[in-house]
Amino acid sequence: MDYMYGPGRNHLFVPGPVNIPEPVIRAMNRNNEDYRSPAIPALTKTLLEDVKKIFKTTTGTPFIIPTTGTGAWESALTNTLSPGDRIVSFLIGQFSLLWIDQQQRLGFNVDVVESEWGHGANLDVLASKLASDRYHSIKAICIVHNETATGVTNNLATVRKLLDDYNHPALFLVDGVSSICALDFRMDEWGIDVALTGSQKALSMPTGMGFVCASPKALEAAKSAKSVRVFFDWNDYLKFYKMGTYWPYTPSIQLLYGLRAALDLIFEEGLDNVIERHARLGKATRLAIEAWGLKNCTQKEEWYSDTVTAVLVPPYIDSSEIVKRGWKRYNLSLGLGLNKVAGKVFRIGHLGNLNELQLLGCLAGVEMVLRDVGYPVKLGSGVSAAAAYLSNTTPLITSRI
Amino acid sequence: MDYMYGPGRNHLFVPGPVNIPEPVIRAMNRNNEDYRSPAIPALTKTLLEDVKKIFKTTTGTPFIIPTTGTGAWESALTNTLSPGDRIVSFLIGQFSLLWIDQQQRLGFNVDVVESEWGHGANLDVLASKLASDRYHSIKAICIVHNETATGVTNNLATVRKLLDDYNHPALFLVDGVSSICALDFRMDEWGIDVALTGSQKALSMPTGMGFVCASPKALEAAKSAKSVRVFFDWNDYLKFYKMGTYWPYTPSIQLLYGLRAALDLIFEEGLDNVIERHARLGKATRLAIEAWGLKNCTQKEEWYSDTVTAVLVPPYIDSSEIVKRGWKRYNLSLGLGLNKVAGKVFRIGHLGNLNELQLLGCLAGVEMVLRDVGYPVKLGSGVSAAAAYLSNTTPLITSRI
Amino acid sequence: MDYMYGPGRNHLFVPGPVNIPEPVIRAMNRNNEDYRSPAIPALTKTLLEDVKKIFKTTTGTPFIIPTTGTGAWESALTNTLSPGDRIVSFLIGQFSLLWIDQQQRLGFNVDVVESEWGHGANLDVLASKLASDRYHSIKAICIVHNETATGVTNNLATVRKLLDDYNHPALFLVDGVSSICALDFRMDEWGIDVALTGSQKALSMPTGMGFVCASPKALEAAKSAKSVRVFFDWNDYLKFYKMGTYWPYTPSIQLLYGLRAALDLIFEEGLDNVIERHARLGKATRLAIEAWGLKNCTQKEEWYSDTVTAVLVPPYIDSSEIVKRGWKRYNLSLGLGLNKVAGKVFRIGHLGNLNELQLLGCLAGVEMVLRDVGYPVKLGSGVSAAAAYLSNTTPLITSRI
Amino acid sequence: MDYMYGPGRNHLFVPGPVNIPEPVIRAMNRNNEDYRSPAIPALTKTLLEDVKKIFKTTTGTPFIIPTTGTGAWESALTNTLSPGDRIVSFLIGQFSLLWIDQQQRLGFNVDVVESEWGHGANLDVLASKLASDRYHSIKAICIVHNETATGVTNNLATVRKLLDDYNHPALFLVDGVSSICALDFRMDEWGIDVALTGSQKALSMPTGMGFVCASPKALEAAKSAKSVRVFFDWNDYLKFYKMGTYWPYTPSIQLLYGLRAALDLIFEEGLDNVIERHARLGKATRLAIEAWGLKNCTQKEEWYSDTVTAVLVPPYIDSSEIVKRGWKRYNLSLGLGLNKVAGKVFRIGHLGNLNELQLLGCLAGVEMVLRDVGYPVKLGSGVSAAAAYLSNTTPLITSRI
Repeated sequence: MDYMYGPGRNHLFVPGPVNIPEPVIRAMNRNNEDYRSPAIPALTKTLLEDVKKIFKTTTGTPFIIPTTGTGAWESALTNTLSPGDRIVSFLIGQFSLLWIDQQQRLGFNVDVVESEWGHGANLDVLASKLASDRYHSIKAICIVHNETATGVTNNLATVRKLLDDYNHPALFLVDGVSSICALDFRMDEWGIDVALTGSQKALSMPTGMGFVCASPKALEAAKSAKSVRVFFDWNDYLKFYKMGTYWPYTPSIQLLYGLRAALDLIFEEGLDNVIERHARLGKATRLAIEAWGLKNCTQKEEWYSDTVTAVLVPPYIDSSEIVKRGWKRYNLSLGLGLNKVAGKVFRIGHLGNLNELQLLGCLAGVEMVLRDVGYPVKLGSGVSAAAAYLSNTTPLITSRI
Repeated sequence: MDYMYGPGRNHLFVPGPVNIPEPVIRAMNRNNEDYRSPAIPALTKTLLEDVKKIFKTTTGTPFIIPTTGTGAWESALTNTLSPGDRIVSFLIGQFSLLWIDQQQRLGFNVDVVESEWGHGANLDVLASKLASDRYHSIKAICIVHNETATGVTNNLATVRKLLDDYNHPALFLVDGVSSICALDFRMDEWGIDVALTGSQKALSMPTGMGFVCASPKALEAAKSAKSVRVFFDWNDYLKFYKMGTYWPYTPSIQLLYGLRAALDLIFEEGLDNVIERHARLGKATRLAIEAWGLKNCTQKEEWYSDTVTAVLVPPYIDSSEIVKRGWKRYNLSLGLGLNKVAGKVFRIGHLGNLNELQLLGCLAGVEMVLRDVGYPVKLGSGVSAAAAYLSNTTPLITSRI
Repeated sequence: MDYMYGPGRNHLFVPGPVNIPEPVIRAMNRNNEDYRSPAIPALTKTLLEDVKKIFKTTTGTPFIIPTTGTGAWESALTNTLSPGDRIVSFLIGQFSLLWIDQQQRLGFNVDVVESEWGHGANLDVLASKLASDRYHSIKAICIVHNETATGVTNNLATVRKLLDDYNHPALFLVDGVSSICALDFRMDEWGIDVALTGSQKALSMPTGMGFVCASPKALEAAKSAKSVRVFFDWNDYLKFYKMGTYWPYTPSIQLLYGLRAALDLIFEEGLDNVIERHARLGKATRLAIEAWGLKNCTQKEEWYSDTVTAVLVPPYIDSSEIVKRGWKRYNLSLGLGLNKVAGKVFRIGHLGNLNELQLLGCLAGVEMVLRDVGYPVKLGSGVSAAAAYLSNTTPLITSRI
Repeated sequence: MDYMYGPGRNHLFVPGPVNIPEPVIRAMNRNNEDYRSPAIPALTKTLLEDVKKIFKTTTGTPFIIPTTGTGAWESALTNTLSPGDRIVSFLIGQFSLLWIDQQQRLGFNVDVVESEWGHGANLDVLASKLASDRYHSIKAICIVHNETATGVTNNLATVRKLLDDYNHPALFLVDGVSSICALDFRMDEWGIDVALTGSQKALSMPTGMGFVCASPKALEAAKSAKSVRVFFDWNDYLKFYKMGTYWPYTPSIQLLYGLRAALDLIFEEGLDNVIERHARLGKATRLAIEAWGLKNCTQKEEWYSDTVTAVLVPPYIDSSEIVKRGWKRYNLSLGLGLNKVAGKVFRIGHLGNLNELQLLGCLAGVEMVLRDVGYPVKLGSGVSAAAAYLSNTTPLITSRI
């Protein structure tokens, strides 16, 4: 029944769940504890303080919810909006599509702004919508920072600028699932009202924690938001925050200690260094793809993602064969193309606790797989392009003596 | 910052989260994996099949949701009911109270049938309500099998009998959080429509999985239920069940393997033996309390719980001092009294992966703590009463050679 | 094939290997590393410094050898003595017997001073031997601090005093396997020349590290000692100490990190508090045995051991039945009687990372087992005697808030 | 103090200790157990049976000793030989040198047959020594199968043939530390009398177990061998084998379960497939080195090692800079050059639980490091040469569905 085992390490390059570093695995290797003892609130307090740092906020209020990214989405929406509220949402790939599906099922009136998959959010349309919305019927802008299905990063600073230019009070809700802790993300500076992510992405933990961070304006909106919510209700958390016990229901003891370890590693490396490392690995990946003569699914450089790259394959190849072959022959886990781009792209996730040689091993594997499926790649071409860049840019590991 | 550490093992006797057996801790000690690889659906398939066994159902459909018991409640309610629906719900302690609070906030019209804390659900009231409900305005009966706050087990067979007697079509929704895998629970035989539990209770895993099992009638009801739900929507699961990929969003890889190990241990011991072990430990606990001259919070023997016992303390003692002292002096974690019984009871959780000597160590600890807080207990009295019983009833461990 | 598994925790009360605390298990949960990288010497340096503290020496030189206690014995002997050397050695139980067997097989001329099992070393004989040894033909005194088979602790201060009284230059070699880190042990103050222990005893780690600590006089003796040794040769270590790389052959990476964690826990609790905790648990155990009407194998109070108690059973009972029954029925692991006392005693190990309630659970288990095998014990009698004492003497856990 | 941590995985390519697969790490993640319970002998019995398979022997008797390879050497020698015995031993690198040093310190009369480092054992000299040894003064031939310092594999079949040709009764003792479980090794077929290895090599476990396997002839020799030994004495083991308790002193519980898991993985993959995988990775490594324009330290193809490759660097480069740089910049652990080849070679260990993409990641790293230290390597050249070969030869992973 262990279909997973193969000789050597699994090379995990899906864009989530990602590799968990050993210190985090170790920290979670423990029995349960009474979460009502004084030890857990003391630990939780440090976590809530430190989680704010990865959102780059000092004014936000974080909620750590035992859920996935889908639940975090729901928490963001239901706490700030009421059924029937008009919102603007950008459809640029599978995950923004799923979020929009959720928005519609939750009863919001969604202006869907669609782009071709591989393009970023069409902010021109946002501009014109804001311009024409004199009576502020738009209650929220919902946008994914990084579309995991296509490897497209949207420009959140521009969204903020548009809202400011039109002096528009709409809430600014951001899915940062495959960006926070990996891409440059500035909740306070960009005036984001709700930002969210999940533990299994750049935090490099198991699935199971949804992180939602609310600005003071979002907290204020929560007071009048009429969407029905109980499990995802911020008020339950706030009540327990006030009491200093923090948890309205049982948290995962293991994930709490795991989060402590994960944050410690990020701060030890330095959040900005983490972000720079992702930039480095993203760029190296793109150079490899170029060397292979393949195209990035992402159509413009401004949208290139430093956490995931979707690679377009020639029409005569089924990209899902690439993923299957990588898994069966080289213990390599790549991301499938989803929905509209199924069969057309495969994805290389390069986020989380990952280093240069891991990526180069993956790229070498992709080359061999490409050859296996009939694409005439020059073996070593992508690796050497990536290595040339990495060789010039990789810093020394600071902890090493 | 490690306020938890003390010499020797922590004696974890809160009624959840409970002790995790070593084989389960081991099974979860692993890196993440691609959940879209063929390995995870193959594993999931066995889990869904085997989870049905702990519900004692062959016709039910299980959902394993990345959430807590609170989320499992929400899933049970929102998938089967519509806002405004009339339901009957029994308030007998803190957890039934919280569920009722959720039911009301979700917009149902709740007939709250309240009992004094320490009493079971008032099924006479149910009988009369069913008798008078000729037009079947009651859409569901909601009941906790075992109230964790007071240690009261309700008689589900009687509920079923009443529904049958009155030929009433109401859905029968059961919170089995602190019962399933520990108490006698028979989903099919008792005609339960939705049953639910959480991973950190008798399954002896970390928090993070809510298990919800739906009868065919419940699935049918889900088709017309108008409560808004997305994250908790069974339909998303059913869609993925059909595709054979099982997961509408990212599951916790670690918990999947942990669940496999937990179920294997339960089946190795034998589910009925597990239940018998709980009966044995519950009885032993009650004998100790009697020997100490203390009262069970539970007022009648028919309601005695074999998973948790709430112990009434004399008025001159604050029960929270007992809990605090146990933790600070003896590395013993007991359950606090909650809400109406705060300060009045402390709780001994005796559920999950636990054996006789662990319980006797706990009882010895409670005796010393009682002495510490000024209760004139005869040291050894409870332990000897419990041991006399256990000594006559404990079977040989079957795996031992 | 997993004959070990039983519901709940195994109650491990053999006098080694003992329970490993979770933080140590966690610290060892890791991949291998290159032991020639700068990280391992940096770690090793702290370990060697800190290991001295558990020997209470500032002048000693510690060797951490990938071996067991038996190997540590061999290291102590072969590095300081030459074949044919006359040594005095005390036979008081199975482990001193095994050590003497080793001494003889290594070619030393052993004056065996035998006591009845249950008695301590006969130091009067030592006195007379020293008195008559005017020409210092005795090269070493070999003594176990604590005989694990009978639960007898010898008085090392007296040995030192005798050597001083007679101004005798013999080396003073001590087996501290079941004493160091648990009993009062003072290498420098007592002028011990070689002291040794193993990782699986009071250090509460897995088996695999032998700790040998040599006084300056022992190091000097090593220069002329002619016993053949290679694997156990201190010189190989000293050579690598000088180079700052520390390891003449590959150490266990896992045990190095485990030792770091184990020492951290001991220092956090405070070594003297650890010793006091052992005194407390030892006394409690003896009170229980007295209450059961059974006899301690140890014949005089001055020899009572605070790490292990051998309990004499009535002639009509086979003590190995007690051990077998404990394991098969109650998941309780007790120590067998060995050699001369096989069938006559069972042993309760109360050393290492252990607390009061664990011990009381064990004692409750022993009572039930005694009843099982036909000994008319009053259930609860031992537990209450132990609890009465513990209840008066157990301090608050210092880390707890 | 954690100098080891760096972002992402450590790339461990020293020739031991090597990467431990997750299932083995998991199996060892446990508390201690009573090794005198029936469970441990039952487990041990399976281990002793299965260990024979990795030696390819049915007639040998294996000993699993809590020690390192150095201790295993000592066990092999002291149990079969007497001080003054003449033995022939081949010096071809640092590890054969250390073994010879041990042989001399143990008092044997060693005919050292030296080759230049990078060459294999000079078997012509052996032939002439055997030819001239009419009176069989040579008691044993000692040879390392694979010299870890230079990456040289000796031809054991030829040694056997020579012994047979000259009808010479000398014992045939083989150090298989970096060969067994990775290279073709046939104890029975090649008439090896004692073969040995360590847990941290191709078995992919932590350090701590020395495996020594004795032929019937070796066991017979042990009866008259006069070398002093106690800890390493086979007789102590044989005594306990007869009793069915197996262990003369405390084994590491964790390593026993780890060994079980390690053997299971090897048998699941198939020992012959494991050996073939090593051949594949060894060949790929050599192709890369050739592509870089560098030389193998090993001077002839017949001696090429499939577990470790020592790479000669140009005189203007200090190979230890390569190792240091790999560690500090790329989290890559390479083997240093030792003794005579210090500064002249660096070593790539490609043994144990390892796969193709891990190796390619390592090779990519070596290329970048070579560039860092001023060697004009074409980035990607070695990777592509290796990949071209691997792409043609790597089989599908059999466990994958």
